[in-house]
Amino acid sequence: MAARVILYVLFVVALITVVCCSSATLKPADTPYKVQYVEQYVDNFNFVSYGQRTYKQRVLVSDTYWEKSKGPIFFYTGNEGPITAFWEASGFVKELAAKFKALLVFAEHRYYGESLPFGNRSFTGENIGLLSVEQAMADYARLMTGMRTQLGCESPDVCPIITFGGSYGGMLSAYMRFKYPNLVTGALAASAPIYLVAGLTEEHQFFQDVTEDFRKSDAHCPLKVQSAFVQMDELAAEGQQGLKEISDRFRLCSPLTDRQDLSHLYGWVRNSFTTLAMLDYPYRTAFEAKLPANPVNVACGLILNSSDLLKGLSQAAGLVYNGTDGTLECFDIFQEFIACADPTGCGLGDDSTAWDYQACTEVTLLESTNNVTDMFPPHNYTAEARAEYCRDTFGVTPRPDWMGIQFWGKNILSSSNIIFSNGDLDPWRRGGVLTNLSSSLVAITIEGGAHHLDLRGTNPADPASVTQARQQEEALIGQWISQATNQVWEGPTTK
Amino acid sequence: MAARVILYVLFVVALITVVCCSSATLKPADTPYKVQYVEQYVDNFNFVSYGQRTYKQRVLVSDTYWEKSKGPIFFYTGNEGPITAFWEASGFVKELAAKFKALLVFAEHRYYGESLPFGNRSFTGENIGLLSVEQAMADYARLMTGMRTQLGCESPDVCPIITFGGSYGGMLSAYMRFKYPNLVTGALAASAPIYLVAGLTEEHQFFQDVTEDFRKSDAHCPLKVQSAFVQMDELAAEGQQGLKEISDRFRLCSPLTDRQDLSHLYGWVRNSFTTLAMLDYPYRTAFEAKLPANPVNVACGLILNSSDLLKGLSQAAGLVYNGTDGTLECFDIFQEFIACADPTGCGLGDDSTAWDYQACTEVTLLESTNNVTDMFPPHNYTAEARAEYCRDTFGVTPRPDWMGIQFWGKNILSSSNIIFSNGDLDPWRRGGVLTNLSSSLVAITIEGGAHHLDLRGTNPADPASVTQARQQEEALIGQWISQATNQVWEGPTTK
Repeated sequence: MAARVILYVLFVVALITVVCCSSATLKPADTPYKVQYVEQYVDNFNFVSYGQRTYKQRVLVSDTYWEKSKGPIFFYTGNEGPITAFWEASGFVKELAAKFKALLVFAEHRYYGESLPFGNRSFTGENIGLLSVEQAMADYARLMTGMRTQLGCESPDVCPIITFGGSYGGMLSAYMRFKYPNLVTGALAASAPIYLVAGLTEEHQFFQDVTEDFRKSDAHCPLKVQSAFVQMDELAAEGQQGLKEISDRFRLCSPLTDRQDLSHLYGWVRNSFTTLAMLDYPYRTAFEAKLPANPVNVACGLILNSSDLLKGLSQAAGLVYNGTDGTLECFDIFQEFIACADPTGCGLGDDSTAWDYQACTEVTLLESTNNVTDMFPPHNYTAEARAEYCRDTFGVTPRPDWMGIQFWGKNILSSSNIIFSNGDLDPWRRGGVLTNLSSSLVAITIEGGAHHLDLRGTNPADPASVTQARQQEEALIGQWISQATNQVWEGPTTK
Repeated sequence: MAARVILYVLFVVALITVVCCSSATLKPADTPYKVQYVEQYVDNFNFVSYGQRTYKQRVLVSDTYWEKSKGPIFFYTGNEGPITAFWEASGFVKELAAKFKALLVFAEHRYYGESLPFGNRSFTGENIGLLSVEQAMADYARLMTGMRTQLGCESPDVCPIITFGGSYGGMLSAYMRFKYPNLVTGALAASAPIYLVAGLTEEHQFFQDVTEDFRKSDAHCPLKVQSAFVQMDELAAEGQQGLKEISDRFRLCSPLTDRQDLSHLYGWVRNSFTTLAMLDYPYRTAFEAKLPANPVNVACGLILNSSDLLKGLSQAAGLVYNGTDGTLECFDIFQEFIACADPTGCGLGDDSTAWDYQACTEVTLLESTNNVTDMFPPHNYTAEARAEYCRDTFGVTPRPDWMGIQFWGKNILSSSNIIFSNGDLDPWRRGGVLTNLSSSLVAITIEGGAHHLDLRGTNPADPASVTQARQQEEALIGQWISQATNQVWEGPTTK
C-alpha cells in the first residue's frame, strides 16, 4: 500500500528524533517536547485538484511519560492558533499524561501557526478553500493512524487514543469521536459550543452571559458600562467636537472621524470585555492577552472607581490591549481590533484571517446585542449581514445548515465516551452540552470556572470546583482506557 | 438560514408533484414513482472552488404506501449506475414499504445516470475530482435533512430513515449509519464488501470463490475451464495461425493479433464468469445482463457438453455478452469488455469511467488470480500496477489506506443497527461482515444466495433461506423503527 508506506516512512524520520527524558523530578509544566513536521495531503478529499501535493503539519510530541507501545496517546486536536499556545495552556493534559504514562501529541490545525498548506500564499484566492473542519479532521485521522503503526501500537488493545481540546479544539475532540471512533476511544471536549456553532442557540444569549459575568463582579458594573455607551452616543451626536472628546478621554492615537469609527470603538470595547469574561481566571495568565488575576473584577474596579466614565471604560478595555505591563502611550483601535465574521472577534494576523474564513463558511457564529439583556450597544448580526460580509471578504457564501448536518446538531446520543465540561463564568457554555445525555456522554459544570479552565495546569488559586472536575475527568478517562485495554482500572498508575 | 431555505424551496417544487396512489390492489413490483431533480452543491467540502454552483441530483420518490409525516423513510443509497436500475432490482424494499407504510426514496449517486455535476463534461480533467464517497454521502445527508423538514418530519420521533443498498450501495448504507447516525436510524447493507475495499482481505479469495461457484455446479466444470485456457496458451504459442484458430472457435468479429489481444480475451472470459457467479439467481433476470435462471449451471452445461472446449467456453462467456436472446453474430471483445482498475470489471460507458475513477482513488480492489486456487490464467494485480494504471488513465495516485481510516476498517463495533447480509454464492461475501459483531450489528448468510438476492422482490423460485433472511431483516428493521418512534413493535403494520 504505497501511500501508507510513504506516510510511515516520514514517521520514522520524524519520531526517532524524540528524546526520552526521565520523568522522576520533572514538573508537568516543564514537560519537554520535540517538534515534528508531518507530511499531509493538501487536499484529503479530492485526488485530482492537488494530486499528491503535501504540506508539513507541525506536531508537538513528548514521550516523557509514555509506556512505550502500550500507554495511551493523549492527542490535543489543535484549534485556531499556533499549537505551542495550546501546549502552554493545557497543563492538565500533561499532569494526566504523567499519571497514565501517556504519549503527548499536540497537532496543529492546518492554516494556523506554521501548518500552512501553501506557505505565505495560503490565504489568497482558491488556496484558502482547503481550510475546513473536515480537512483538519482528516489530517488528524491520518496522523493517528500513521503514529499507531509507527510506534508499535497496531494491536487495538494498546495505546488507546484520547482526544483533548478547548473551545473549537474541544469541538474537534468531540467530532473526532463522532466521526472516527475507530481511532478515538474517548474525548475531553472542554468549553465546546457544539450547539451554538450549528446555529441551534438563541442569538442574544452569548453577550447576555458576558454581561452577567460583569454583574456577578458588581451589580453596578454593567449599568455603568451602559451609561458610558449612552454618554458616547450623546457626545457623538454633537459631531466632530464630541468625537474628539471621546477620542481624548479614550486615549486614542488618532481621533474618531465619523459614526463608523465610533462603531469600531464599540467593537473594540466589546471584544475586550468578551475576552475578559472568557479568560476570567483566578490567577495571572498570558493565553491570549497578559491579564491580571480575576480580570473582570479588575475591569469593574477601574470602571466603578474612575471619576471619568469614559476613561474608566478605556482603562478597563485596555486590560486586554495594553496588557499587565501597560506600555501603550495610546490605543490604535484599528490595529488592536479587526471586525470579522465572528462577532466575538478573530484576533490578529494570518490566524485571524483563517478563523474569519471558517466563520464565513462552516462555523456559524451569529451572536447579537440588544442593550436590553446585555450592556452593549444594539447590534443585530443577521445571517444576511454575515453572508454579505463573507461574499465581500472571501467571495464565499455561508452554508448555515451544514454544521448541524455534518456534526449531528443535537442528535448525538449514538456517540459515547465524551466529557463536555463548561465553566459557569464562560459565555460560551450555553452553546454546549450542559446535562448528562447518557452514562458516557457526561456534562461537567465548573462553578467559578472561565473558558476551559479545567485544561489548565493545577494552580494554588484553583477553585475547589475545577479540582473536583479534573478528578472526575481523570476517573472517566481512566475507565475508558481500562475498557479499551481490557484492564481493571485501579486509579492512576502513578501519583 | 439562506442555504437551507434555498434547498427546501426546491423540495416544495419537487414534492408537490408526487401523486398519491391507492395501494389497495397494487403489486409492489408495479409501485409507481415520481422523478425529482434536487439541487445539490457541486462541492460539499470546499466553499471557494465552485462556490454556490449546484447540479441536479435525480431522486425517485414514491409515497404510495407512506403514512404522511409519520411513517418511516426507506432511503436507497444509490451506487455505481442509473438509480432506475436499482429501483427495478430492489423489489423487497417496496414490499417492506407497503408493510411499514414507508416513503420510498431512491437517490442517484453523483456522476452516474443523469446526476452529472458537470453534464457531459463531468469526466474530463479537474471535473472528475469531485467524484468521491464523501461527496456522495454529503449529498444524501443534505437530501435527507431537506426532506425531513419539507415533509413535516421535524420531530425526531417520526419518519425514521432506514438506508438500503446492495454491493457498493450497501457499503454506502452502512457508512451513512457510521457517519450520519443523526439522520440514519438503521441500515440494510446487502452484499457490502466493506473489509475488501479497505484492502483488509486476501487478494486471491475473490476469484477462488468465483471458481468455487462453478465447482458447486459441477466439479469438472472449473477443471475444463482450466484446460481450455491451457489449450489457448498452446495455440497462441504457435503464433498467428494459433491465434486465428482461437479467434474462429470463439467466434470473434476480428481475429486476435498478439498476446495482448489474447490477454484481453482472457479478461473478457473472466469478466463474464465473474458476472455469472455474482448474478447466479434461481430465475431469469435482466439486472446487468439478460441471464437465464441459474446461469452458472447453464454455463457449466455449455462447457461440459461441448465437443469443442473453446467453443464451449465462448458460448458460456457469451451468456453475459449475448444475453438470453443471443442475437450476436460474433463477439467484439473490445466493445463488450473494457479492462479497468477494478479487476472484476467496470461495465461500459460513462458509468464505467466513473467507477474506474473510484477504483483508482478511494475504493481498493486488488483481486488477483493464480490458476492454482482459481480456474483463471495467473494475473498478479499489485498495488503498484494499479497505481501505474491510475496515473496513466486519470493522472491520480490511489491512497490505499484511506478507506480503512475514513470508514473504520474492522473497528466498527461502536456503530449499531446495521444488517450485513451475504449470499454464500456471492464471490464478494468474504469481503464483508460474516459474523454477528453485537446484538445490533447482525450478519445474515443466505444459503444458495447470489449478490444481494435478498433485496430483490419475492419470487416463486426463491430458496427458503432468502425468505427467512427477509423475515429476519423485516423483524430487525421493525424493531429499529419502534425504538426510534417510541412504539411497541407488533410486527408489520399491514400484511
